[in-house]
Amino acid sequence: MINFTAGGITEPKGFKAAGIHCGIRRNTEKKDLALIYCEKICDAAAVYTNNLVKGAPILVTERNLMNGYAQAAICNSGNANTCNADGEEKAEQTCAALAKELKINSSDIIIASTGVIGQPLNINAITEAIPSLVKNLSVEGSSDAAMAIMTTDLVKKEYAVTFKLGGKNTYIGGIAKGSGMINPNMATMLAFLTTDAAISSEMLLCALKESVKSTYNMLTIDGDTSTNDMASIMASGLAGNPKITEKNKDYKTFVKALTALNTKIVRAMARDGEGATKLVECRVCGAPNGSTARTAAKSVVSSSLVKAAMFGSDANWGRVLCALGYAGKKIDIKKIDVSFISKTGSISVCREGAGIPFSEEKAKKVLSDDEITIEVNLHDGSSKATAFGCDLTYDYVKINGDYRT
Amino acid sequence: MINFTAGGITEPKGFKAAGIHCGIRRNTEKKDLALIYCEKICDAAAVYTNNLVKGAPILVTERNLMNGYAQAAICNSGNANTCNADGEEKAEQTCAALAKELKINSSDIIIASTGVIGQPLNINAITEAIPSLVKNLSVEGSSDAAMAIMTTDLVKKEYAVTFKLGGKNTYIGGIAKGSGMINPNMATMLAFLTTDAAISSEMLLCALKESVKSTYNMLTIDGDTSTNDMASIMASGLAGNPKITEKNKDYKTFVKALTALNTKIVRAMARDGEGATKLVECRVCGAPNGSTARTAAKSVVSSSLVKAAMFGSDANWGRVLCALGYAGKKIDIKKIDVSFISKTGSISVCREGAGIPFSEEKAKKVLSDDEITIEVNLHDGSSKATAFGCDLTYDYVKINGDYRT
Repeated sequence: MINFTAGGITEPKGFKAAGIHCGIRRNTEKKDLALIYCEKICDAAAVYTNNLVKGAPILVTERNLMNGYAQAAICNSGNANTCNADGEEKAEQTCAALAKELKINSSDIIIASTGVIGQPLNINAITEAIPSLVKNLSVEGSSDAAMAIMTTDLVKKEYAVTFKLGGKNTYIGGIAKGSGMINPNMATMLAFLTTDAAISSEMLLCALKESVKSTYNMLTIDGDTSTNDMASIMASGLAGNPKITEKNKDYKTFVKALTALNTKIVRAMARDGEGATKLVECRVCGAPNGSTARTAAKSVVSSSLVKAAMFGSDANWGRVLCALGYAGKKIDIKKIDVSFISKTGSISVCREGAGIPFSEEKAKKVLSDDEITIEVNLHDGSSKATAFGCDLTYDYVKINGDYRT
Repeated sequence: MINFTAGGITEPKGFKAAGIHCGIRRNTEKKDLALIYCEKICDAAAVYTNNLVKGAPILVTERNLMNGYAQAAICNSGNANTCNADGEEKAEQTCAALAKELKINSSDIIIASTGVIGQPLNINAITEAIPSLVKNLSVEGSSDAAMAIMTTDLVKKEYAVTFKLGGKNTYIGGIAKGSGMINPNMATMLAFLTTDAAISSEMLLCALKESVKSTYNMLTIDGDTSTNDMASIMASGLAGNPKITEKNKDYKTFVKALTALNTKIVRAMARDGEGATKLVECRVCGAPNGSTARTAAKSVVSSSLVKAAMFGSDANWGRVLCALGYAGKKIDIKKIDVSFISKTGSISVCREGAGIPFSEEKAKKVLSDDEITIEVNLHDGSSKATAFGCDLTYDYVKINGDYRT
């Protein structure tokens, strides 16, 4: 039994958080510096962007997590600290200042930045704010931290799940920011997860990778892959469950709970994609294997033409078939069925690769909902996958036409 | 010496063309049926979309061109004749009716359709119009044919080049339609090329493939690959040059002229991309090999974020670096230089992978032009490539939000 609960990263035992305005952003109303801290050293793991251009904080975090431990995570918004000659140096300075204040090792810190690329980071604003940031740490601080990492996000992403591990109540919490796989200037998708499960960093990394495959890696807003993407997780072990050190039954339960949480986060990110008015999911079933299912589903939600059609509530299924056709997988077009589904109802529009008569009026109604599922059956096996995206709107162009000014 | 000349597909000796309204489109002002005819049988070749979903006319044309000959090309706009159960049958019917009227073999016809996917083709409108279409054939008909194949194109694409082959004046002409690699409902990129050069169908196919690699295949409007893309060429041989049957000097001259023409067409297509206000080219130089150069250049012009920044005249070079970083090629980010160039001037914005100070005011001016070049030097070899695209605008969303109605 996995249940969602109120709160976020401070639900798991041992964690405190804070979020404040430090001055990287001009708007003093907007928090721009977040901190997560655990009272004890945690097993920790993270996965990072595949982009060859990597934000300086990513490089520092990769080094810091090599030993599998972390005790704090710090993240600023408003500046990605990427493509700056002195980027790594400044990320290290931030870690050093924070370590001193928290009395922990500098190498036990996860660091991240999100915002504009290629502009020098105002390191003084951060180091000067660290004492008050630490002072603000509290078990009520999760929401502040969630707000401090937002960029073009309109909605805060903060969730937690609870479940039993070895008879013990266990929590996983998360805060994250979108608003896309890539966003203005790409310093983009960040998720900070915490848990009080006892689990080794090796198993934590396995669990994170397994979960990411069907969640963050199935999300696309605009097809660009960010330079600063990162999902990290810290495990305090304070739930008191028998420590997970191999892929046993508890490990499977943990992955299931983690994936439930990450799915929630990813749907919220898609729904809050830049300029988005609708969450658009593509569920592919009947695929010969998982890779085909994932690639096909992602190709559909990535298509600019499908996305624009969803914005216009236009049941333009030909664009869905087209996106399946260029996905690069072996798909028998003549077997494909397509339906559109929303809370309003569902409507079949294509059977065996060809159009079938349908009510345009009903289709318009189904597609006018703010959560739409495009269901594709390949009738060629039993694998399935879901991809998460949003519609393409005027506001996406507006937001990205002049982000820096 | 390759010179552009007025006119299009009827510049090469032996060709006539026509374009009329047959009734597939409701708007009687809009021509929707085009015909190209040669007085003698031509060596012919074509390249087609890689999409697994292929328009019915594509399948028929592939069969018809297997012997390397064609004498006519017919194309309707307004309906893609794709994903229809009776699509191939109707395409064959069209060929049969046209063959009868022209007194040629039905298998010597290139057939194409462009428009909405998955809606039954009104075959009667076409067959009934064929007699008057044939009657309209003339050496002045190139422009009418160019207009008849347009869908969301705002501007007609009709060009011709002249050059010497074996001492003889030779022509290559072309008409094409965009407005994207993929367009509303995807029945999209079509180019019909004619030449009076004497060249075997084998060499014609080699020349077309070679030229397409640096022209049509380097064009992207929205990243979607159409179901109906096709570029075809017919060679009458009436220029009187010694027939090209191997990759000799004349072959090279022919490829050069063909590529000059196709580059002109591709730039016009990009400039007229759906909703586009600007032509955006990315020139990559200093690449270790051609494949890296092409992939890198195409990644930049494909990025929604780069495209939106170009719309907003925003010198957001971080997005260019990001697109290079996820291109999937081995690129040393720390060596990259980036400049923006237009008629107004040029401005360096990134050197060795990091930002350099530049005048935002000047950058805005440079980027406010309607033809922008993003110049990227990888400083890692001597290969280069250019990709062609356009900006991402409100109008793209508008055009594609509700195309079918």
